[in-house]
Amino acid sequence: MRVTVTINRRPEIADPEGATVMRALHELGYTEAATVRMDRVIHMEVDGDDADEVRSRVEEMCRQLLANPVLEDFEVEVAP
Amino acid sequence: MRVTVTINRRPEIADPEGATVMRALHELGYTEAATVRMDRVIHMEVDGDDADEVRSRVEEMCRQLLANPVLEDFEVEVAP
Repeated sequence: MRVTVTINRRPEIADPEGATVMRALHELGYTEAATVRMDRVIHMEVDGDDADEVRSRVEEMCRQLLANPVLEDFEVEVAP
Repeated sequence: MRVTVTINRRPEIADPEGATVMRALHELGYTEAATVRMDRVIHMEVDGDDADEVRSRVEEMCRQLLANPVLEDFEVEVAP
């Protein structure tokens, strides 16, 4: 099954990578860039027949490895 | 204007980060993970009134800084 995991930094947590990119954009003359946030998307192909079971296994993967639960929120979508 | 830039590695280009994550998942017992690809999403707030102009400026930012045109494809979405 195709699974998409979106990992976003929590809004209250600073995003140093985004801040660096914004500074670089301003130095290149793109001063219209007002905010920049960098997020991650993981596209996976996961073996399994039951969408609910696949989702709960991938959520477990997120908590254990893919996301940092202190800094990040994640969302798991299983394609039908 | 809210702009979302999705940066995906071209399908024919290897994704060493995804391969590393997949290996780690397998070592943790998640052997059902068959493929893993890591992509990036940049959420921006860009000053400007004209959606077409904002899009073309952000595409320029992608070519100059945000994406690596040799390895990556990008897609710019401007929210109305």
